[in-house]
Amino acid sequence: MISTPKEELNDRLRKVQHIIAELQADACIITTSVNQFYLNDFIFDGYLYILPESDPLLFIKRPLGIEGQRVEYIRKPEQLPDILGKHNLSLPRRLLLETDALSYTAAVRLQTALNMPEMINASQKLREIRSVKSDFEIQQIRESAIIHAEVYSQIRSIYRPGMTDIEFQIELEYRMRKAGSLGIFRSFGENMDIYMGNILAGNNAQTPSPYDYALGGGGITPLLPLGANGTPLKEGTTLMVDMAGNYRPYMDDMTRTFAIGKVPEIAYQAHQVSIDIHNEIWETAKPGIPCAELYLWAEKRIKENQLEPYFMGTVQQAKFIGHGVGLEINEPPVLTRRSKEILQPGMTIALEPKFVLPHIGAVGIENTYIVNENGLEKITLFEEALISL
Amino acid sequence: MISTPKEELNDRLRKVQHIIAELQADACIITTSVNQFYLNDFIFDGYLYILPESDPLLFIKRPLGIEGQRVEYIRKPEQLPDILGKHNLSLPRRLLLETDALSYTAAVRLQTALNMPEMINASQKLREIRSVKSDFEIQQIRESAIIHAEVYSQIRSIYRPGMTDIEFQIELEYRMRKAGSLGIFRSFGENMDIYMGNILAGNNAQTPSPYDYALGGGGITPLLPLGANGTPLKEGTTLMVDMAGNYRPYMDDMTRTFAIGKVPEIAYQAHQVSIDIHNEIWETAKPGIPCAELYLWAEKRIKENQLEPYFMGTVQQAKFIGHGVGLEINEPPVLTRRSKEILQPGMTIALEPKFVLPHIGAVGIENTYIVNENGLEKITLFEEALISL
Repeated sequence: MISTPKEELNDRLRKVQHIIAELQADACIITTSVNQFYLNDFIFDGYLYILPESDPLLFIKRPLGIEGQRVEYIRKPEQLPDILGKHNLSLPRRLLLETDALSYTAAVRLQTALNMPEMINASQKLREIRSVKSDFEIQQIRESAIIHAEVYSQIRSIYRPGMTDIEFQIELEYRMRKAGSLGIFRSFGENMDIYMGNILAGNNAQTPSPYDYALGGGGITPLLPLGANGTPLKEGTTLMVDMAGNYRPYMDDMTRTFAIGKVPEIAYQAHQVSIDIHNEIWETAKPGIPCAELYLWAEKRIKENQLEPYFMGTVQQAKFIGHGVGLEINEPPVLTRRSKEILQPGMTIALEPKFVLPHIGAVGIENTYIVNENGLEKITLFEEALISL
Repeated sequence: MISTPKEELNDRLRKVQHIIAELQADACIITTSVNQFYLNDFIFDGYLYILPESDPLLFIKRPLGIEGQRVEYIRKPEQLPDILGKHNLSLPRRLLLETDALSYTAAVRLQTALNMPEMINASQKLREIRSVKSDFEIQQIRESAIIHAEVYSQIRSIYRPGMTDIEFQIELEYRMRKAGSLGIFRSFGENMDIYMGNILAGNNAQTPSPYDYALGGGGITPLLPLGANGTPLKEGTTLMVDMAGNYRPYMDDMTRTFAIGKVPEIAYQAHQVSIDIHNEIWETAKPGIPCAELYLWAEKRIKENQLEPYFMGTVQQAKFIGHGVGLEINEPPVLTRRSKEILQPGMTIALEPKFVLPHIGAVGIENTYIVNENGLEKITLFEEALISL
């Protein structure tokens, strides 16, 4: 396990302290695993208490055994005022909290324990900070992408005529884990469950899901209505493989599509439009360009090719072509018509213009790109054509 | 996929309606996947709006395509007042919400949209309802337990001298998935991440984790500090296997422990104490007995055998011996000294008195029992002794 360099952790903390100042708050309490890991390099049950000018305090319930001058063991949030007093700190009057993730019960209990400070949502600001990656972070995404491609290169040998989508997925999951997939696959937002990725075969690609992912699928259980549902891999249909690139804490994202035997010409055409959109954005996008513009370029190509009815689904269509990726699979920026974000150096974006063709299946590819000073760098390097199985 | 019988869904809804009446509320809004599945048989992004006396309304954002007289498609919670008006319903003044799970942001937005009703936490009440299972639910737990045992019977053939805990786990996960494991493994509470279960080899069993599970382990990534961490399976140490029984939406829970070669006598002794505790509770517990009493019986045996320093960990000790299990792996009742719950027919409990022995590893077993009218019925039927590999 690689530790985050101390200087980089300090940089990240300074960015949060900058937000505390900007929002005229007195402190920021971090409770989510992802942001604790980002700012503290390890996860604990408790409160990472970030102050505007001094080092953070760690109020830890579990695990036992963490040592440090700024570590305080607690059983409950009601102990915070006394301990803050001991450190000569007054109670916060304005407090930043990750209220998009923290439960109402936990937030109100904390607010009450701290004598009712005004609470300000820091979730989006923290996501913005995380959306611009350091070289250290980008290196991990690069490494993940290399392993991801290596695993996808095993797909041809996994495929057996007559197998179902879920049988295929299980074989692929096994190879992913053997290649170092960390298993856990984090996404942001309530009710955004997923397990190791999304495999879509044939008409199951049309099935809408409750989640805010690119595509749907019915799933094998009503407890997780997403992805593979037992569809046999049948001649004339496609198999879209969008499995997790979770080989490092910082993830990449990559989709490839396979044709079972010969598929109708429209599948090759639509797949090529996805590739064309990628190439256009890859060649043209650079820092300073609004994310919304990327969406509009894609939309133009989609309309020229009369593919709107199939773009990102049929029954239910996700009007976006990509998203940031990092510790979570859905980070800013989001690439939609209404995006307010501007491309910045250090962003890592997954582009995924896809089409769902009735009676055939999903087509298109997804690549991860790093936004460099002078343009996009593609890091998910693997055969892009519709691959025959 | 089995549908829940309509009558049973009605029974469950009536229990929620009873709580609405008991708490003098006007409505209950269900937003979590687990409770939507429990009360509605499918998951959607939106609000299951339960009324005291009439059928629920479904306010659905996604997926598209759900039909029904009580289905209303929405984009945002601010649309609720108009739609409620259309149904001749007034705005709720007292509202039950799952505030232990719903984010502060989402809860406050909903409260504002509904003109600031008083919000009451329904999370625990819903968990209590779910803790007593119907025959339909118990049947699924039984089926899961049978498959769970079948998968554990493959452990001997998986083991290879020299392999690490994570290599072992990956082989077991693969067989679990082939046997029908649904993949997703749900637990209740914030920051309660887990992936497919917990494998603990040798001294890694002593490593405390941030989570509220029975035991810890360091994990292979700081993003999920739990379980297998790459420890080699070494002669003289134990391998504890506590993998998910998620072969049905309703889960069972089962742990077995394996000895690599010959292990010190204390390991056999402590393992036998775990079995003895199981047998005593299995023979004696029945409806009407306080859950705290089960803990006290166990504690007596542990003290008699001078095993307190090793009970449920060394560095960090979880002072409990079991928990309910169902749609989530940690349901009520919880079996601790302070438990207030009384055993009731239809509860399903996982007993897991375990010991962690320095330089050897974890020992003990976990079984799932159904609380029947006349006592406990064991459903996780698999060799209980410390199994030699």
